[in-house]
Amino acid sequence: MQRYFVDFEIQPHETFTVTGQNFQHLVRVMRAKVNDCAEFVSSDHLVYVGRIQALTTHEAVLLAENRLEAQVELPLEVTIACGLPKGDKAEFIVQKGTELGARHFTFLPTQFSVAKWPANKVDRKLDRLQKIAHAAAEQSHRTFIPTVSYANSLKTLIKQPMQFKIVAYEESAKQGEHTKLHQEIMKMQTANSVLALFGPEGGLAGQEVQTLEEAGFVSVGLGPRILRAETAPLYLLSAISVFKEMR
Amino acid sequence: MQRYFVDFEIQPHETFTVTGQNFQHLVRVMRAKVNDCAEFVSSDHLVYVGRIQALTTHEAVLLAENRLEAQVELPLEVTIACGLPKGDKAEFIVQKGTELGARHFTFLPTQFSVAKWPANKVDRKLDRLQKIAHAAAEQSHRTFIPTVSYANSLKTLIKQPMQFKIVAYEESAKQGEHTKLHQEIMKMQTANSVLALFGPEGGLAGQEVQTLEEAGFVSVGLGPRILRAETAPLYLLSAISVFKEMR
Repeated sequence: MQRYFVDFEIQPHETFTVTGQNFQHLVRVMRAKVNDCAEFVSSDHLVYVGRIQALTTHEAVLLAENRLEAQVELPLEVTIACGLPKGDKAEFIVQKGTELGARHFTFLPTQFSVAKWPANKVDRKLDRLQKIAHAAAEQSHRTFIPTVSYANSLKTLIKQPMQFKIVAYEESAKQGEHTKLHQEIMKMQTANSVLALFGPEGGLAGQEVQTLEEAGFVSVGLGPRILRAETAPLYLLSAISVFKEMR
Repeated sequence: MQRYFVDFEIQPHETFTVTGQNFQHLVRVMRAKVNDCAEFVSSDHLVYVGRIQALTTHEAVLLAENRLEAQVELPLEVTIACGLPKGDKAEFIVQKGTELGARHFTFLPTQFSVAKWPANKVDRKLDRLQKIAHAAAEQSHRTFIPTVSYANSLKTLIKQPMQFKIVAYEESAKQGEHTKLHQEIMKMQTANSVLALFGPEGGLAGQEVQTLEEAGFVSVGLGPRILRAETAPLYLLSAISVFKEMR
């Protein structure tokens, strides 16, 4: 069933009104009629099946029928931070990372970033990425729309208070270090916050990794193969899902 | 270090000659000079560091120095089979799936496939996908180049002898079934063959899943979120890596 996010609290067994883009999609794209249903995520992250009671040219009135109980959110609040990647890879990371359960994305310039986000374009880029996160959250049946933000530097990023801070470091993988990620994930408890940092195409500089380790980040390898900048976050999110949701 | 696949057996401490596209890349793109090194994967899947001894206009003579011992291949022989996906998603699946350790890819028409591969274009499509697998195998430092093939139908596919056969089925995920994949992976032993089938954008038909189950396929869910057709194989490969390579 199609899923939409609304920016108000839905009350069970009461009616609510859908307008704007949700209305357009529901009626123009899905061609929904009176008595048809869709899923609506309330601003408190609860999901209701809404049945259309009435339609005008610009709004739909729905009745909130049953609430869906399924737990679809990753049990950890994971932030994926990436050194600015090239081309459309930021879009790719946000789309796939949303499907795989990330709660926040942060992009930041690092030493080996070839891509630049000029100051006057940051807002436009974030807007576009936020829209991708929104669509992917609907499509993958999330109850949270991940946030997308920009950090000016590594210094800004590492100040964020987080319970777990990890950095994916290619050299760790090359040295056959494959157990640390597992160890870290095993320590994580439900609702913990996790910040995971990934380098851009050229990786992170040794000096950056040193700064990060001094700030409490744990260097982890992501298996024995060299993963591209945009694949590494997906591996990490899958690993967290596998250990925390699959057993 | 740049990695190349050669189609002959390299002998340790002996010289070997590189021509064609590998030569072009080594000398024109990487601008390698006499005494520079690169990694070469021998046809027996062993990896040697080769040092350039001499260069002409069309070939490089190298000495096979030390052999690299790192185990980079997934310990299982995994075939990813996908209902024909739309657009460039087959390319995406092959590129990312190669990074994540798949050994074979098979594409096949299924009931809900919107995309079609006309008979006269199959070879060209496979050629292109095989090139993507080759480049991704070099880039991710694999010692096998995954194969890419086309199957005419589900019937052809399910005849393949495999030790494990699984099918990713969205309904399993929706029903909160998250343990079967874990159970199946735990049964897999080193060098076992695994065939994992994924539907196209519209998923698999209930009848197809029934046919598959009758042929010994196990239906598994891939966590609680709905994954896109091209994301699901990456989750599966990551899950196998996490359980078999990370601990």
